[in-house]
Amino acid sequence: MVLSPSAPGIRRAFGASLPRRSRGARPAPASRRRRRCVRALIEGLGSFRKGLGEDQMTPPQGRSLLTDGDEAAFSGRLLALARRTALEEGAGALSTVRLAREAGVPKLTVEKRFRTRADLLAALQADILVEAAEALVDALGGMSPRRPQALETLCRLWVAHWLDHPALFRVAFPEGAAPPRTGPRDPLAPLAPYFEEGLDGEGGRARADLLLCALHGIVQAQLGPRPGDWTEPGELVALAVDAARA
Amino acid sequence: MVLSPSAPGIRRAFGASLPRRSRGARPAPASRRRRRCVRALIEGLGSFRKGLGEDQMTPPQGRSLLTDGDEAAFSGRLLALARRTALEEGAGALSTVRLAREAGVPKLTVEKRFRTRADLLAALQADILVEAAEALVDALGGMSPRRPQALETLCRLWVAHWLDHPALFRVAFPEGAAPPRTGPRDPLAPLAPYFEEGLDGEGGRARADLLLCALHGIVQAQLGPRPGDWTEPGELVALAVDAARA
Repeated sequence: MVLSPSAPGIRRAFGASLPRRSRGARPAPASRRRRRCVRALIEGLGSFRKGLGEDQMTPPQGRSLLTDGDEAAFSGRLLALARRTALEEGAGALSTVRLAREAGVPKLTVEKRFRTRADLLAALQADILVEAAEALVDALGGMSPRRPQALETLCRLWVAHWLDHPALFRVAFPEGAAPPRTGPRDPLAPLAPYFEEGLDGEGGRARADLLLCALHGIVQAQLGPRPGDWTEPGELVALAVDAARA
Repeated sequence: MVLSPSAPGIRRAFGASLPRRSRGARPAPASRRRRRCVRALIEGLGSFRKGLGEDQMTPPQGRSLLTDGDEAAFSGRLLALARRTALEEGAGALSTVRLAREAGVPKLTVEKRFRTRADLLAALQADILVEAAEALVDALGGMSPRRPQALETLCRLWVAHWLDHPALFRVAFPEGAAPPRTGPRDPLAPLAPYFEEGLDGEGGRARADLLLCALHGIVQAQLGPRPGDWTEPGELVALAVDAARA
């Protein structure tokens, strides 16, 4: 499995009919820099492959959402449509009314699943985080959380994932950082063993929180207006993991 | 001097005629929690006073911008108007056309100062950061960067400042973290001595960057949807400073 934009959630909803972004357009300097950072982050991690250079795909338009499939698949398709809108126009453009129009279903059909705009946004964010967590666990390829380098590998892949998908990052974290973990509905639950194993001992919870905050800031710095002013993200991740272990 | 919303930039532009926000409205639970965090962050810092409970003020409407004053003051007033728009409706609502309309001046008058929307946003962000840096240096009240607790005090105040002014934070950092320092036009230059003194030695620059990223993430976590899930920001700041020193 690869840590790529063709991630489980959308793939489940739309099968194999997903368009790939054309490679014709020359990337902006910022995105070329980001790609270099991503390569540096995953360098030496051996078995990981990434769909570098591809942007997040968006589901195709004009497809009837009411063709077969069960309730979960239907909600998944609604979320995929909402994701397209958020990626193209920002999370601010989301609404249940618009989603109903685009899906070609009555407004009530959407609001039965997502009562309000906030519910819809929360569900979309959870969807993106679950997808990221699943992609990361896939990319870790069964590496035991007990292996000494497991935590740093996970953190490098986490940062690389978001640098590779900045638009998804902005939708998933529009105003603040992710809920870290804890709780049965935590979308990042699959990653918890790596944090628990890598940061056990006294104050482990606080050190894990600090590490998550630092990783978040490292991504943000790279997505900001002057990413080149910052120390390379790979070096920062290594420092952050060391610090959290201390 | 106090670290309060009545900060230098806006005050310079509009003198003492700034309205205070009414205290009548009951704050939402999230903002009450934030206020508790801010209090914890500045507890024990002795000589610091904060205008807790006040939101960022916005300049009054309908005031002619072309009454006397020099060029810098005029640009400052335009920026203050732009700030009001960004605080009330988000940075996405900014434009040179709208700013000209609100200031009651021709579009070209605005575009001579801020050529594009991006220039305007960048100037507004720099204005907010300069203001934060000045307020922090004021709040430090001449504490020498050499004092052992200077760096942690600065970091606590930095996080407290943004938790106290979340709307300003969102305008200043709409998609990414701040440019850290370096360069003559760096709005955070006044804070540099504290980072240099507190984090000297080998790898100091990388450790300072990590600390800034962590502080950014700590604020973001508190502004996110489930701030209560995170370790208290005061504890995280202390850990982050310790880690950066190691």
